[in-house]
Amino acid sequence: MDIAARLLLNTEVTRRVLVAFLRQELERFDFRKAVLNLSGGVDSSLACFLTAEAIGPENVLALLLPYRTSTPDSTEHAHQVITLTGVRSKTVDITPMVDPYLERDPEMSDIRRGNVMARMRMIILYDHSVVWNGLPIGTSNKTELLLGYGTIFGDMASAINPLGDLYKTQVRQMARAVGVPEAIIQKPPSADLWVGQTDEGELGFTYAEVDKLLYLLVDERYTREEVIAAGFDARFVDTVMRKMRASQFKRMPPVIAKVSRRDVGHDFLYPRDWGT
Amino acid sequence: MDIAARLLLNTEVTRRVLVAFLRQELERFDFRKAVLNLSGGVDSSLACFLTAEAIGPENVLALLLPYRTSTPDSTEHAHQVITLTGVRSKTVDITPMVDPYLERDPEMSDIRRGNVMARMRMIILYDHSVVWNGLPIGTSNKTELLLGYGTIFGDMASAINPLGDLYKTQVRQMARAVGVPEAIIQKPPSADLWVGQTDEGELGFTYAEVDKLLYLLVDERYTREEVIAAGFDARFVDTVMRKMRASQFKRMPPVIAKVSRRDVGHDFLYPRDWGT
Repeated sequence: MDIAARLLLNTEVTRRVLVAFLRQELERFDFRKAVLNLSGGVDSSLACFLTAEAIGPENVLALLLPYRTSTPDSTEHAHQVITLTGVRSKTVDITPMVDPYLERDPEMSDIRRGNVMARMRMIILYDHSVVWNGLPIGTSNKTELLLGYGTIFGDMASAINPLGDLYKTQVRQMARAVGVPEAIIQKPPSADLWVGQTDEGELGFTYAEVDKLLYLLVDERYTREEVIAAGFDARFVDTVMRKMRASQFKRMPPVIAKVSRRDVGHDFLYPRDWGT
Repeated sequence: MDIAARLLLNTEVTRRVLVAFLRQELERFDFRKAVLNLSGGVDSSLACFLTAEAIGPENVLALLLPYRTSTPDSTEHAHQVITLTGVRSKTVDITPMVDPYLERDPEMSDIRRGNVMARMRMIILYDHSVVWNGLPIGTSNKTELLLGYGTIFGDMASAINPLGDLYKTQVRQMARAVGVPEAIIQKPPSADLWVGQTDEGELGFTYAEVDKLLYLLVDERYTREEVIAAGFDARFVDTVMRKMRASQFKRMPPVIAKVSRRDVGHDFLYPRDWGT
């Protein structure tokens, strides 16, 4: 069974769907412009290309939000995307906001530091949503969302997300199709939150591997036993399923205690349609 | 029709329900401890009393996160709650993180400044969730959630929220029942984000007024025409309904473009139950 082949997208159809999604959702939210954090990685680069195509580059603001340890490569790649798409851009160094907090606790782990940085970037994204009058576009992919490999209320925070149903390997395929530079597509994925961080090093497996497993578990609804029978290592399967379960809280809104006959989140659920 | 009377809770039953909710949800999330931002207002004070009752004050961390313009009253009231409940507490001044960003734009509006502060407090709340190993408890009430009177990914961010189905006037009633000091219950509600801010001044109507209207619209499913027939001013009704519609995005997770047969947010929706 060639699972990788089943993950391949029809890039032309997918591109049309995602561009239409961006146009339609911006209109529903009553926005003509968009803003996104452009890290220089493949996810935000693809999101930038798609959003520029959907509403015109003059209506897209790309924010570059480096920290003092960010690699110069990230900035360089972000600038390539800005030049190629023609979007507007602005740079804000997050170091002066981040460091006063990190300095309070020299023992702070890399993960905690990374979360502070990811959330500081959300603050600047959402503030620019007001200044620029643009809707914040999300750049979390399906692999990250399912594994919980991201910061809740940080990089996972957005109003609309064109990439949330694309596995990482599919993001790469789409990025190639829309013209994202090969250097961005081929570099090791990294949140660039500390020096030397790579996604695959931190996770302990490759995206190519885990995307196939996630595809069978989620899209094809295979059971644990069925994916093992299909050739996946039982320990790897259990690790991934544990990550999916442990990160459910990141994919849902706060749980509200219900005491009335109609409450937010249970019964009062009319996304963007209530009120006639 | 005495609508205010219909908003009155059976405080003993509600208290038991909310305390049980806190215990049960903490267990489901596999946490034994909790953390919350204690502003010294009535909402967070009530949340603190309820959480202390649910899991014991030694398992609750109350964070005091003042900004340089915060009123001394807020801190003083927070300390009263800490003494009365016996919870642990920690103070972190957010000024050193907030000011470097505000200084970039001297024209920044009060609302934008307030959003930066609310989100900075979320960063510290979530960081302490890791340090203290406690689940972040939300303190947004039903009135705020329905009106969108709060900062998304700021004070609206939490894992579980015991107050989200209580209108502000019901929060006051419950606060009185559990022993929150009268000074806290009776002071004018304020997010204390800038000097002189009061909720009711900013909103343009009182909680007592709007809670009755929201109760009829949401809990009793009255139409616009029915609430006007019940005596509410048409302009007030339209203002409130507009706020409810305009804030729907704050009550829902990011909208993800669906391209596969099963995606996060549409089909893969098994909050805390997936995986067997």
